[in-house]
Parts: sequence; C-alpha cells; structure tokens
Amino acid sequence: MQRIASFVLAASALALAGPAAAQFAKPEDAIKYRQSVMFVMSQHAGRIGAMVQGRVPFDAKVATENAEVVAAMAQLPWTAYMPGTDKGGNTKALPEIWTDAAKFKEHGDKLQADSAKLLAATKTGNLDNVKTAFGAVGGNCKSCHDAFRAR
Amino acid sequence: MQRIASFVLAASALALAGPAAAQFAKPEDAIKYRQSVMFVMSQHAGRIGAMVQGRVPFDAKVATENAEVVAAMAQLPWTAYMPGTDKGGNTKALPEIWTDAAKFKEHGDKLQADSAKLLAATKTGNLDNVKTAFGAVGGNCKSCHDAFRAR
Repeated sequence: MQRIASFVLAASALALAGPAAAQFAKPEDAIKYRQSVMFVMSQHAGRIGAMVQGRVPFDAKVATENAEVVAAMAQLPWTAYMPGTDKGGNTKALPEIWTDAAKFKEHGDKLQADSAKLLAATKTGNLDNVKTAFGAVGGNCKSCHDAFRAR
Repeated sequence: MQRIASFVLAASALALAGPAAAQFAKPEDAIKYRQSVMFVMSQHAGRIGAMVQGRVPFDAKVATENAEVVAAMAQLPWTAYMPGTDKGGNTKALPEIWTDAAKFKEHGDKLQADSAKLLAATKTGNLDNVKTAFGAVGGNCKSCHDAFRAR
C-alpha cells in the first residue's frame, strides 16, 4: 500500500454552507462529533508529545504525518458548538462557550494557527522547532480546556 | 476567517512507524479512536447523502468540503484494529476482522479508493457523478458492516 494519494482538507470546511444547526440531526450528534474530533486529535498529538518528551525517538516523517492529522482535526469541531448543544450526551462544555463566544473563537482560531505551525515545524526536521511549536499547541489546549471545559 | 490554508493528510499516515499496538496506550483507546473516526466520517458522508437524496439542494463546493473529510477519515481507522482490540469498550467488531484479515483489508482499501473517487466526483460539479460515486462508498460501508460489525 505505497500508493501516494493525498487528500486536502481546506480550512473552508469550517464554513460549510447552511446554518450550523442544520448540519447535525440532533444536539447529541454535535456533541459526539466534537468529542470524536478532539479524541482523534489528542491521539495524534500524543504521538508527537511522546517524541517531544523523549519517550520515543524523534522521527520527523512520523511527526509530520501526525501533525497533518492534528492540523486537519483542528479545523473541524467548531461548527458543532452551536447553541442548544450545551446539554445532552455527556458534554463537559461550559456555558462560557456561548456567553463568551468571542474568546472561545479566539482559542479555536489560535489552535488552528498553532497546529499549522506545528506541521511546519515537523517539516524542518528539527526537534527543537517541534518542541517549541508543540508547546504552543499544548498550551492552547490547556488554556481553552481550563476556561471552557468542566473538570 | 477567509484564510486559505490547506492541510494535507497523506495516505502514508496509514503506515505510521512502529508497531501499531504501540500507538495506543490501551485497547479501549484504539476502539474509541476507530469509532470516533467512523462517526466523523459518517457525519460528513451524511451531508453528501442528503444532497444525493434530494433532501438538500446540491452544492458542489459543500459536497467537496465534506468529501475531503470523508476521504481523509477513510485513511485513519485501520491501524486501530490491531489484535487484542476485539474486546473492550463497546466495540461491535466481529472476530472476522482478525480471522479474515485479508478480506477486511480489501474493504478498507476499497473505501479509501472509493472515497477518493467521491472527492473527484464532487469536483466535477455534476450531481449524477456524485450519486454514482456516493453509491459505491455507501455500498462499501454496508458490505463491510454486514460482514465485520455486529448488529
């Protein structure tokens, strides 16, 4: 399976036509969707984290492959935080997501920018660059979770 | 947020270095990962399906955006079906995934090929092309689920 096929996830996927609410059949689906995206993102980020922390040897190619998934995932969850999805499923979403929507969006935008930088850093092949960029992504995860996710 | 940034998910993400088992901290993570990927894929496929079935107007651009996510997701779940993940979590994975691994892989490869064709079809802007390609993807989902997923 050495087929070289590449698929592009445009950032415009963020802005799918139609009201966001129409994209999910029910609030539970939106909640499950954003949790799924976050989980996939965290698994791939974790594999870069293992290199950053020296638990596995640094492999720039593998780091890039994982950073590609992180960057792609970082674009997806935002449309799923539409009003009415603060309850249902087992969401830990805090009301501040909707009462302080501008700040939440800032975090989302920053995650997308930071994960693009992480991807670029992995392509330099330099572990120090990856460490710096990974730290920014991780810091953004943490500050957003601290502010907008229940413990 | 009109920034044009695109992220590439190479098919080589399928072949991340190291034994697959080492990629997940525990079997439950692998199960949750593949279920997460499948759910994200299904949500985006469903948005194309709504156009194919005439429930929402056909919009080639939106179809392409969704097909990009479907094609990207189609590459990801396979490494998470490693031995030892037949139990745990709430998996519906049938033993045939491991006892008939070649056939399972065939389905996985076909899904990737079919979803790449679906993406190409959306780019033609022709709904009939999308219908044909979507039918192939949906047929593959169904036949694989029939053979390898418990009801």
